[in-house]
Amino acid sequence: MRRKRYAEELSSLKEAVLRMGGLVERMTQRAVQTLVERKPEMFDDVRAMEPEVNQLCIDIDGACLEIIALRQPAAKDLRFITAAMKINTDLERIGDQAVNITESGKRLLAVPELKPLIDIPRMAQVAQEMLRDALNAFVNGDDRLAEKTIPRDNEMDQLKDQIFRELLTYMMSDPTTIPRATDLILVSRHLERVADHATNVCEDVIFMVRGKVFRDKEDVA
Amino acid sequence: MRRKRYAEELSSLKEAVLRMGGLVERMTQRAVQTLVERKPEMFDDVRAMEPEVNQLCIDIDGACLEIIALRQPAAKDLRFITAAMKINTDLERIGDQAVNITESGKRLLAVPELKPLIDIPRMAQVAQEMLRDALNAFVNGDDRLAEKTIPRDNEMDQLKDQIFRELLTYMMSDPTTIPRATDLILVSRHLERVADHATNVCEDVIFMVRGKVFRDKEDVA
Repeated sequence: MRRKRYAEELSSLKEAVLRMGGLVERMTQRAVQTLVERKPEMFDDVRAMEPEVNQLCIDIDGACLEIIALRQPAAKDLRFITAAMKINTDLERIGDQAVNITESGKRLLAVPELKPLIDIPRMAQVAQEMLRDALNAFVNGDDRLAEKTIPRDNEMDQLKDQIFRELLTYMMSDPTTIPRATDLILVSRHLERVADHATNVCEDVIFMVRGKVFRDKEDVA
Repeated sequence: MRRKRYAEELSSLKEAVLRMGGLVERMTQRAVQTLVERKPEMFDDVRAMEPEVNQLCIDIDGACLEIIALRQPAAKDLRFITAAMKINTDLERIGDQAVNITESGKRLLAVPELKPLIDIPRMAQVAQEMLRDALNAFVNGDDRLAEKTIPRDNEMDQLKDQIFRELLTYMMSDPTTIPRATDLILVSRHLERVADHATNVCEDVIFMVRGKVFRDKEDVA
């Protein structure tokens, strides 16, 4: 039964979470890149990554339960393992958001471009950086990095509002732009949710390290 | 330390999850009712419930970790406790969605009504029913109820699409309706997310009971 040493089990768990994080980050990045470069064939690459994400999600949950059941970990390790389970859920949902972006994306690439995309790739970049920092904070148990990452959600909110106001102007002056503008607004909301999930990961890391809950003043969008 | 018997600990955990579920259900219900009845003062009631939800969320997570650490539960109980932790997260986010509805709601109630709301209260009703069934499935370990609830997400999708198409017509024919229509679309998306969280709860219940993962064919919106 106990083929691996406990420390190895914990480090393979860490690696699996990182692999999953890398995958959903690439999914998000590729979904937005496809939209910006208007190459609809690349959307299939995003969808093709989903089964691996789903399998990893099941494997990580299974590994966590097994470690808890067989190793009966003490306080700090237990917080690490339950953090891994929660982060796992958030990462899977980031993958779902990437797929959601391809849905709006397919409609957007079927019609002429409304405008060159500037703020949406910027949002994607901030969301990816937040996710990368959140995952680094997790593997290194770096609660200060996690705490520093959370306020970047405000950058996302500003970009989202900016996109919304700009697209509103398009829609008001020319109603034929409404379907495209609405899809771009949806893409910005999906990216906002990616950042929300990255924020959740940061909060889990802080709880994991400190053993108490971190509450930002503004945690509702 | 061990003031309560183990069975009592598990049943108070169950009660806390139910109390939290009841709270966020009421928040959602009240947010939409306020919007439909155009009584902006009621939005404060929704926000007033948030601190209790946040505190319950922290208490439930703490209780779960304590039970795992002190009781070293076996497979089935461990799945129950980890399900409680995951459900806890989803319930808290339902509360966030209710607050998000009040944000759009405040803007909507500051201007004349665009149209009487019919599909949005219907969406709210389906989402609440899904949540109630999901919580009943959790407390009774009823995986079949959970499995029956999941496909109701399709009703939500249909209502959401219907709302979207209708509001698109408003926006196309009269651009001055765009800000209000966009806020109503956002409200429908928030309600969709409430249903998504209820679906997550159902999936957690199925895993808790069966010990294996339930995967619906269509789990991405």
